[in-house]
Amino acid sequence: MKKLINSAESLTADALAGMAAAHPDLRIDPRTHVISRADAPVPGKVGVVSGGGAGHEPLHGGYVGRGMLDAAVVGEVFTSPTPDRILAALRAADSGRGVLQIVKNYTGDTLNFAMAAELAEDLGIAVRTVVVDDDAATGTPDGTPGRSAGRRGTGATVFVERVCGALAEQGADLTAVADAGARVNAATRSIAIALTACTVPAVGRAGFELPDDRIEFGVGIHGEPGLRTEPLRPASEIVQDALAVLLDQLPPGDDDRTIVMVNGLGATPLLELYVVLNEASAVLRKAGLTVAHTLVGNYVTALDMAGVSLTVCRADERTLGLWNTPVNTPALRWGC
Amino acid sequence: MKKLINSAESLTADALAGMAAAHPDLRIDPRTHVISRADAPVPGKVGVVSGGGAGHEPLHGGYVGRGMLDAAVVGEVFTSPTPDRILAALRAADSGRGVLQIVKNYTGDTLNFAMAAELAEDLGIAVRTVVVDDDAATGTPDGTPGRSAGRRGTGATVFVERVCGALAEQGADLTAVADAGARVNAATRSIAIALTACTVPAVGRAGFELPDDRIEFGVGIHGEPGLRTEPLRPASEIVQDALAVLLDQLPPGDDDRTIVMVNGLGATPLLELYVVLNEASAVLRKAGLTVAHTLVGNYVTALDMAGVSLTVCRADERTLGLWNTPVNTPALRWGC
Repeated sequence: MKKLINSAESLTADALAGMAAAHPDLRIDPRTHVISRADAPVPGKVGVVSGGGAGHEPLHGGYVGRGMLDAAVVGEVFTSPTPDRILAALRAADSGRGVLQIVKNYTGDTLNFAMAAELAEDLGIAVRTVVVDDDAATGTPDGTPGRSAGRRGTGATVFVERVCGALAEQGADLTAVADAGARVNAATRSIAIALTACTVPAVGRAGFELPDDRIEFGVGIHGEPGLRTEPLRPASEIVQDALAVLLDQLPPGDDDRTIVMVNGLGATPLLELYVVLNEASAVLRKAGLTVAHTLVGNYVTALDMAGVSLTVCRADERTLGLWNTPVNTPALRWGC
Repeated sequence: MKKLINSAESLTADALAGMAAAHPDLRIDPRTHVISRADAPVPGKVGVVSGGGAGHEPLHGGYVGRGMLDAAVVGEVFTSPTPDRILAALRAADSGRGVLQIVKNYTGDTLNFAMAAELAEDLGIAVRTVVVDDDAATGTPDGTPGRSAGRRGTGATVFVERVCGALAEQGADLTAVADAGARVNAATRSIAIALTACTVPAVGRAGFELPDDRIEFGVGIHGEPGLRTEPLRPASEIVQDALAVLLDQLPPGDDDRTIVMVNGLGATPLLELYVVLNEASAVLRKAGLTVAHTLVGNYVTALDMAGVSLTVCRADERTLGLWNTPVNTPALRWGC
């Protein structure tokens, strides 16, 4: 295993200390691993919180700031944060108008965030939860979960965090912010393709084996098995197949506009991500969809996995309006 | 070789088409591979141009926009653009006040940009050139080039592009913009460490071999050999040794303030880059230097190389002032 780390044990703490050095405008608690806006809780504003295991950077800490998250909480690599730490994030974000927590659909996360919500309610903090479950590789076309725990949460998390953060910034109440999050999640699907497995530092070896000429189609962001292992082919063919699965599950919308994310899983050159976007744009155009906005880069990674995920959100007027409002975080920034 | 591409031959063109889809606010010429601001040439403003081989994304196309480059020109992977294409970029950027071209110190680039400057001068365009040569692994402490072609140009390019772009935006003349670029270059040094080699698509195999427990210390951004191959060690020790080489060559300054970039070479998780920044901050503090600003992420890559480069710029009041002015490009954005 080759990593620029001091030890697997100190990795998350060391990285958070580095993040604090890079972003003095954020408050980072070395005890709870909560990253929050310096001005949190923002008076009169609904709080927006997310979190999960480390290893998906810049998710979630990189999305803390004006127009997105008030606080994020980070667990160890690929491990959910504990309820007491999630509670610390909820408390950091609550100004009295309640907190929305955005949770990716994994057993550990949903359980721990639910427990934290109960603890917060006991303290008089109103909490609503949006569970993100956009991974088309784990669902069937009619929406029936293809695996026991339902669809996994992945790229749509960035979209839900952005739209909910924008709406909260405008002064909307907790119900409205939660409803917007649920609406964006329902209108978004993702699918990922791995060229290589990632290596969890505490494990020390690759999570699965892929021969030099094969890819994992439909892989999860922790290296969960995909729909199939198949031969490496030209990007155009891989993207066409990926979008066929994704579009088959994307609910119909009133509108032909989309927001598209081409996300590097950690070890993929930007040059290749642009190739993928070019192919994806052509496929979407043929499907009668227009691309209103794009994100191309590393937004939801899986440590050092080589590969890409594609996320498509059917964006109505409200979503597009919120998307374009100012956002000022380490990883997403415009309009400020 | 595992790449998300259609073919090695079409890679640069496909990626540029994807970049055009992602950034409709940029003008991308599929014939010349010139990426320019939609409003270029900006009336009354000195033009700022850079370019070089592809494979270092987001350098250079990702730095085109207000407050940075007016135009960038991209060659094939790790191959300098030809003089006629560089000339197209110079013409796209010239509003009549002349153009500064920022060139990384490699034989092909310096030769081709020099020829393009001559062609532009024949057309009545005033051209000045800043050659960036910050790679401490290729120089000796007294500034004597350690290898035939002098120090290589690497991370400082981002710093020179930012400061020159900011100054040009303020209406400074060509001489002032060129002098600022030369000043920032002289005040900046970089060093890189590779954990793995990168694979040039047209070659199809890794550029060099590194055993599982060894790193290349002082590597170049095209995979050029470093100062030495050595055992993998904890990040703290690697960073300490890297900064020792770098600081030994960093010219003395009037001021203790620095801008620091921790740059991923393409396949390095952000989690590890933050660990490196944390260690680097401690070393710089001990050396009596303060960190005024940081960039942590993928800014000057070497395709799919795993590893990191460290860049330190001694930043005086003028440099810091220019650094903080608004910039609005795909890869660097603040204040707008």
